[in-house]
Amino acid sequence: MKPYVLLTNDDGIFAPGLYELSLAIKEIADVVIVAPDSERSAAGHAITIADPLRVFDFEKNGEFFGYAVNGTPADCVKIAYYAILDRKPDAVISGINLGSNTGINVIYSGTVSAATEGNVLGIPAFAVSLATYSNPNFKVAAQFARKLLPVVLEKKLPLGTCLNVNVPNVAEEKEIKGVKITRQGKSEYEDHYDKRTDPRNHVYYWLTGSKIDVEKEPEVDDVAITQNYISVTPLHYDLTNYNFLSDLRGWKL
Amino acid sequence: MKPYVLLTNDDGIFAPGLYELSLAIKEIADVVIVAPDSERSAAGHAITIADPLRVFDFEKNGEFFGYAVNGTPADCVKIAYYAILDRKPDAVISGINLGSNTGINVIYSGTVSAATEGNVLGIPAFAVSLATYSNPNFKVAAQFARKLLPVVLEKKLPLGTCLNVNVPNVAEEKEIKGVKITRQGKSEYEDHYDKRTDPRNHVYYWLTGSKIDVEKEPEVDDVAITQNYISVTPLHYDLTNYNFLSDLRGWKL
Repeated sequence: MKPYVLLTNDDGIFAPGLYELSLAIKEIADVVIVAPDSERSAAGHAITIADPLRVFDFEKNGEFFGYAVNGTPADCVKIAYYAILDRKPDAVISGINLGSNTGINVIYSGTVSAATEGNVLGIPAFAVSLATYSNPNFKVAAQFARKLLPVVLEKKLPLGTCLNVNVPNVAEEKEIKGVKITRQGKSEYEDHYDKRTDPRNHVYYWLTGSKIDVEKEPEVDDVAITQNYISVTPLHYDLTNYNFLSDLRGWKL
Repeated sequence: MKPYVLLTNDDGIFAPGLYELSLAIKEIADVVIVAPDSERSAAGHAITIADPLRVFDFEKNGEFFGYAVNGTPADCVKIAYYAILDRKPDAVISGINLGSNTGINVIYSGTVSAATEGNVLGIPAFAVSLATYSNPNFKVAAQFARKLLPVVLEKKLPLGTCLNVNVPNVAEEKEIKGVKITRQGKSEYEDHYDKRTDPRNHVYYWLTGSKIDVEKEPEVDDVAITQNYISVTPLHYDLTNYNFLSDLRGWKL
């Protein structure tokens, strides 16, 4: 029996990356798509509790493609599991995101949060992102997701752990040097707020930023991609800094 | 010289918990408040990149109280640092949240995300939450924050680590049994979506949920609070599951 796989993303249900992912995964799995009705990038691990959620059928090429939800990627996984699907999916795949989700950006990533939410619900999950914002070629990333799915289902991930996959933007698979198992990078960013005045003379701000590269080790997510490796990072959602527990117990509080 | 402290929250700038926190911290620090203009609970670590941010002066009791931002808690810390404050604050304190932020809820918490964002910017930070949704008494939590601030500034937290403080809702400090250094709990939740039909006959869903307690160890955040201890958990934002790295390297990918 084919595995039953839930696909979602944070770029929105109309995004080409999700469509390419669905084409590749449909070759080997029964696919259901539940994705945000609009772009939810940098949504973090937000869930919607103060507003009602709505679910709409979404068509593509004249056929039913999936369910659009007026919520975040984590909302999509949660409502799929509890209210849309009639059985628990065997896996959740989130992506293919336009733009990498590496280093500190992982904590802001809606793409990763959907995979994490899969974990919360006890479902094996991974996120796939393409390391570019222009001229994306999703094919190589989609084929890697297709290859990774059966391995994840066979090998099994530890409870509460998902994989964060980042793929270099190359035209053909042969340009990929291989797969590197990495850790989340610690590269720093320098952000700015671009201050502007609107036509009614009110001030507003746009967030902009640029990375200040600080890490060079090959086992770092960002570094691997730059060297044309596919980066695979195991992530969990236990945020406890265990190394600091005993020091902190020595504080007088 | 008094420390310069940025206060924020996710319940919104009008929230009583933030006000009580500001009263307590103003006794020992120069305080600036930059908080969301509306409730942003369960905002996760979201930041606003697709919409412009606006900053408004917010008054309380006829006086300037702080800056209201049409963004998330993480946005507030970021824009405070880059566009509102004229110097780097010595600390960020987020809260006092109405409702605990423990266990898995930590990953959805806007309150915690503001402290994390402080860390991202290299500022010592902690989040304070009150473990109740009704009849809150913020005084004990506010006094604990006042006590914790100088300790954090003196002892120093490791880079990229904040403290997640959860305080039982008691009338007087003497009801508190002490402070427990804890880890993020792993208790599971069972969520539901309440399906309703609006007056125009369209279906919508409300998220509801209840905790299924699975952990009993005293070193768990939730358990400590239930036993009337103040829970202090060190959190970091490196999500890498290091224990799984070598196993994963054995997979054929």
